[in-house]
Amino acid sequence: MKNEEKLLQFLTSRFPAKGPVRVGIGDDAAVLRASETHDWVVTTDQFIENVHFLRRSQPAKALGWKALARSLSDIAAMAGRPRFALVALAFPPRTPSRWVREFFSGLALLARRHRVQVIGGDLASASQVTADIQVIGEVRRGKALLRSRARPGQAIYVSGRLGLAALGQLLARRKTTRTVLEAQARKAHFTPQPRVELSHRLARRGATAMMDLSDGLSTDLHRFCRASGVGAIIFKDRIPATSLPPQLAQRLQTTELGLALHGGEDYELLFTLPKTARLPRRLLGIPLTKIGETTKKKKIVLVDSSALTPFREEILRPGGWDHFQKPGRNKNR
Amino acid sequence: MKNEEKLLQFLTSRFPAKGPVRVGIGDDAAVLRASETHDWVVTTDQFIENVHFLRRSQPAKALGWKALARSLSDIAAMAGRPRFALVALAFPPRTPSRWVREFFSGLALLARRHRVQVIGGDLASASQVTADIQVIGEVRRGKALLRSRARPGQAIYVSGRLGLAALGQLLARRKTTRTVLEAQARKAHFTPQPRVELSHRLARRGATAMMDLSDGLSTDLHRFCRASGVGAIIFKDRIPATSLPPQLAQRLQTTELGLALHGGEDYELLFTLPKTARLPRRLLGIPLTKIGETTKKKKIVLVDSSALTPFREEILRPGGWDHFQKPGRNKNR
Repeated sequence: MKNEEKLLQFLTSRFPAKGPVRVGIGDDAAVLRASETHDWVVTTDQFIENVHFLRRSQPAKALGWKALARSLSDIAAMAGRPRFALVALAFPPRTPSRWVREFFSGLALLARRHRVQVIGGDLASASQVTADIQVIGEVRRGKALLRSRARPGQAIYVSGRLGLAALGQLLARRKTTRTVLEAQARKAHFTPQPRVELSHRLARRGATAMMDLSDGLSTDLHRFCRASGVGAIIFKDRIPATSLPPQLAQRLQTTELGLALHGGEDYELLFTLPKTARLPRRLLGIPLTKIGETTKKKKIVLVDSSALTPFREEILRPGGWDHFQKPGRNKNR
Repeated sequence: MKNEEKLLQFLTSRFPAKGPVRVGIGDDAAVLRASETHDWVVTTDQFIENVHFLRRSQPAKALGWKALARSLSDIAAMAGRPRFALVALAFPPRTPSRWVREFFSGLALLARRHRVQVIGGDLASASQVTADIQVIGEVRRGKALLRSRARPGQAIYVSGRLGLAALGQLLARRKTTRTVLEAQARKAHFTPQPRVELSHRLARRGATAMMDLSDGLSTDLHRFCRASGVGAIIFKDRIPATSLPPQLAQRLQTTELGLALHGGEDYELLFTLPKTARLPRRLLGIPLTKIGETTKKKKIVLVDSSALTPFREEILRPGGWDHFQKPGRNKNR
């Protein structure tokens, strides 16, 4: 398997969207015309042991929460309201019942918070725990926010702080939590908050295109720009990276910018707005940061807006998660 | 993990159906109120390497077909019309692209046949191939056929011939196909035909309850009866078992009745009708066989209707597939 993008291109041409399918393969979720007033937004997302998580480093409850959070985040990315979930779960036959019940308890906790009903699923045995969660959401007809609708000359924003979940992952194996930052990072990694409410607010304030950040800004920004047929200029000093004490950065062999660009699993929103639109610096307590602009030229460049010398452009390459990259390429994670 | 039924009971009480959810966990698919005229029927089904199939014994194309067929069969079991599919597929990173493309080709073939649109999905890496397919179907409002609506004193029917797919599985490792029976069996195992059209015809002819036979008649009949709160008397000489030449039966160490009762993966329909209703012996070329009757007493007994001596009752115990049974219990498969 070459890489994920190529396979997606093949699938998009093999299964084109038509008829009641307003958006098919390629966005965070599919959009179906449901009625005169509403569309359905539908997504599925896999969460696999030893690929997305290590079972021994996370309580079952957190895994159940996160499995659902990933799919809710896809619905949020379309400005949809999640309504129903189907849970397909496979696990080794010797898994204790308690583990399975806790998994579903964690999932139920997040489901209740967003008024999502679990309506069905499938249980099977497998050698590794595999959860696949489908969520059906609702959106006003024609109002789903797509990743393909950004136009050149729009402002690019992200919500939240980036790299926090990736820091949490790096810290996950340590039993003790020493600092406030470490506690926040573990929380972001174990129990991410899908930005459901925030995305509705942003849609109302005129967001033109949106996706969620699941595989790292550097990778997801490429997908976003490709889908919209635009490029981007990103001010690297404006990326809301998680501040790292130098000692910790050194010990973890990472950098603030590296985590923010390539870390992944932040489940924050990446979106565009017309340049003239104004956003508050925070909405619902979540920081909103303008990190750059879309361009006609289809490359993504990183610049330092604070430098005194003229712009030194750097091409941003995808450095986030790709399931089908050559081994070792996903080292930034 | 004790067994599948117990876990299902836990989940049904944890996530009760309410509001727009007409049917939740526990049937072949969930039913959602969609509009004044229609309901949605939604299902998800996992298909896992080394659990449900061996990769080396089946071409990728057949696996793609079967992965979708399993979910379409769930929709058929509700008398729904499948419309949209989401495909979550995980596979080892070294899987050749050709394998993945063939998987999707096989899936597309069956999708086209039933006019199902593939609208999205998810790709990930995993140590074993795992496909999870969600299908959204449509049914006229309130017209979904449930497994819980059989009443005592109704006729129990099955479609098709039972045990053919299980025979195909037993033969799957042999490269050459010697007889017509062997060819039919391999076809039933590799590329099962979900009974979508048949189920609509049966619904129109007054079927009262329905489910699909995926885990073997002996196991699925228990689920059916439990859901409806009935028992059953089954005439074992009327079960439409696949005829086996004695030599083949001996070589495979199985029996006609054993395969038909416990074999599984037939994807035929199990359904009830009022005793007064009449059915043709075939519909759409598929045999329909009355195998017994529902009873008030909540046990399932096997009798031989052709015996000259008075009934010798045998209790039928579930002998089909259970993912979470103790090792070795699934030996009938």
